[in-house]
Amino acid sequence: MTFTYHRTVRFIETDAAGVVYFSRLLEWSHEVYETSLIASGIDPQRFFSRSQAWVTPIVETGAKFFQPMTCGDRLEIVMRVESVFTSEFRCDYEFFFEGSQREFHTAQAFTRHVCIDTETRKRRSLPDELIAWLQVFVDP
Amino acid sequence: MTFTYHRTVRFIETDAAGVVYFSRLLEWSHEVYETSLIASGIDPQRFFSRSQAWVTPIVETGAKFFQPMTCGDRLEIVMRVESVFTSEFRCDYEFFFEGSQREFHTAQAFTRHVCIDTETRKRRSLPDELIAWLQVFVDP
Amino acid sequence: MTFTYHRTVRFIETDAAGVVYFSRLLEWSHEVYETSLIASGIDPQRFFSRSQAWVTPIVETGAKFFQPMTCGDRLEIVMRVESVFTSEFRCDYEFFFEGSQREFHTAQAFTRHVCIDTETRKRRSLPDELIAWLQVFVDP
Amino acid sequence: MTFTYHRTVRFIETDAAGVVYFSRLLEWSHEVYETSLIASGIDPQRFFSRSQAWVTPIVETGAKFFQPMTCGDRLEIVMRVESVFTSEFRCDYEFFFEGSQREFHTAQAFTRHVCIDTETRKRRSLPDELIAWLQVFVDP
Repeated sequence: MTFTYHRTVRFIETDAAGVVYFSRLLEWSHEVYETSLIASGIDPQRFFSRSQAWVTPIVETGAKFFQPMTCGDRLEIVMRVESVFTSEFRCDYEFFFEGSQREFHTAQAFTRHVCIDTETRKRRSLPDELIAWLQVFVDP
Repeated sequence: MTFTYHRTVRFIETDAAGVVYFSRLLEWSHEVYETSLIASGIDPQRFFSRSQAWVTPIVETGAKFFQPMTCGDRLEIVMRVESVFTSEFRCDYEFFFEGSQREFHTAQAFTRHVCIDTETRKRRSLPDELIAWLQVFVDP
Repeated sequence: MTFTYHRTVRFIETDAAGVVYFSRLLEWSHEVYETSLIASGIDPQRFFSRSQAWVTPIVETGAKFFQPMTCGDRLEIVMRVESVFTSEFRCDYEFFFEGSQREFHTAQAFTRHVCIDTETRKRRSLPDELIAWLQVFVDP
Repeated sequence: MTFTYHRTVRFIETDAAGVVYFSRLLEWSHEVYETSLIASGIDPQRFFSRSQAWVTPIVETGAKFFQPMTCGDRLEIVMRVESVFTSEFRCDYEFFFEGSQREFHTAQAFTRHVCIDTETRKRRSLPDELIAWLQVFVDP
């Protein structure tokens, strides 16, 4: 299953070349991730704080750009999630201009997250709330 | 009349003190301004480019902070606009936690914009499309 | 006394109008503030964390813009600090193009900070390390 | 040959988890790239504008994170550049804590740039000023 999110490109996200600055794509990817967590009932203030037993930092990211985006563009972003190991998951994001054909995406990105113990900084298995979130995305 | 906008605080907008970094409030103010322009039929790509005869840069801004905001908070932002001279307008923004009483705002901000000729950099009167946008906000 | 800081305008700090996005000025102001704290021996990681007894959030800010700045511009930023009450201080920032006359600044900004107890969120007097930092800026 | 750059982590670059937000690494990478262009005599305002015959947008980027960074950390960033085709080049960035051993980097990143004609959006060979910049990085 996928999670779909809609977003308008803001003026601050453009640069003097008149188009979107490249790393904004990764901020938007994280925004989709946050929104999907909230949609599955997770409290983002607690989830992203240092005060719980585990954290899920991004250990790798990447993006490809196919078409420039500019201020006011309406984007449709489609996220897919998969667990990689018991301690790791990966999110893939595809970016489309709203209303365009799904074959022609404007960009794509991914983030890879590892679950670690906050104290020891060692890998540990994903907590139940993340497993529940992941299962929303698993095809039956 | 006012323009009301809703927004969720994102993780990137917080800092290591656990709350929203102060200047984010001004980015959100501009986001509300952009959204109100789009709502009145203005194309933001053209409006915010250098290729037209006039621009409306911000010449002054300010903000006051009453309560900290954090990741996941749902905000309601209310914008009021007034023309100051034929060449100038001012936007006021009030920030509330969604669902809270209107007497208790979390922050407020303003931006003051002057319309200038792109070539000469001298003040000129507001173009028709901005006057139309302003009139949406004028009480009858 | 004043604290002087030099900085180059980055590409990400410009927008599709070809010039610096307005709220970047406040990020630069905070960067100067941080640098002055480090220069007086303060550890910024500890200072800006939630784990100590007090914090000094910004309760008010403002800026005025006189000339547009663009990618690659070299700026000289001059900070002045004054204590307002025993629980409050204010930083003023003036922005110049490097090598220009001091009468012609490109922008100015300020931040007003209040010292509060982390637990009770009530005002308290400035801690010794901030008083020491302030005294660097006091004229003899 | 390599280009080495030093930088302090700013408060705004941290998030509520207390460490650097992941996509900041790519902003810093671009800052190193800009600085190396300026060092080779290129005017960044012209280079990054839409008004010349060619542009060199980023078509792909990526990053890996090995250790968290936090406010006030002093970083040493080492950039290597290689031309891939006559129309394409790639920049690799390695991030170290200042004073640490070169075997232990905190993160790494890359950006891949393609030179295109501003009008036709088709690939073209790199302009002379970029070839000159690239040759600075070529070992004899």
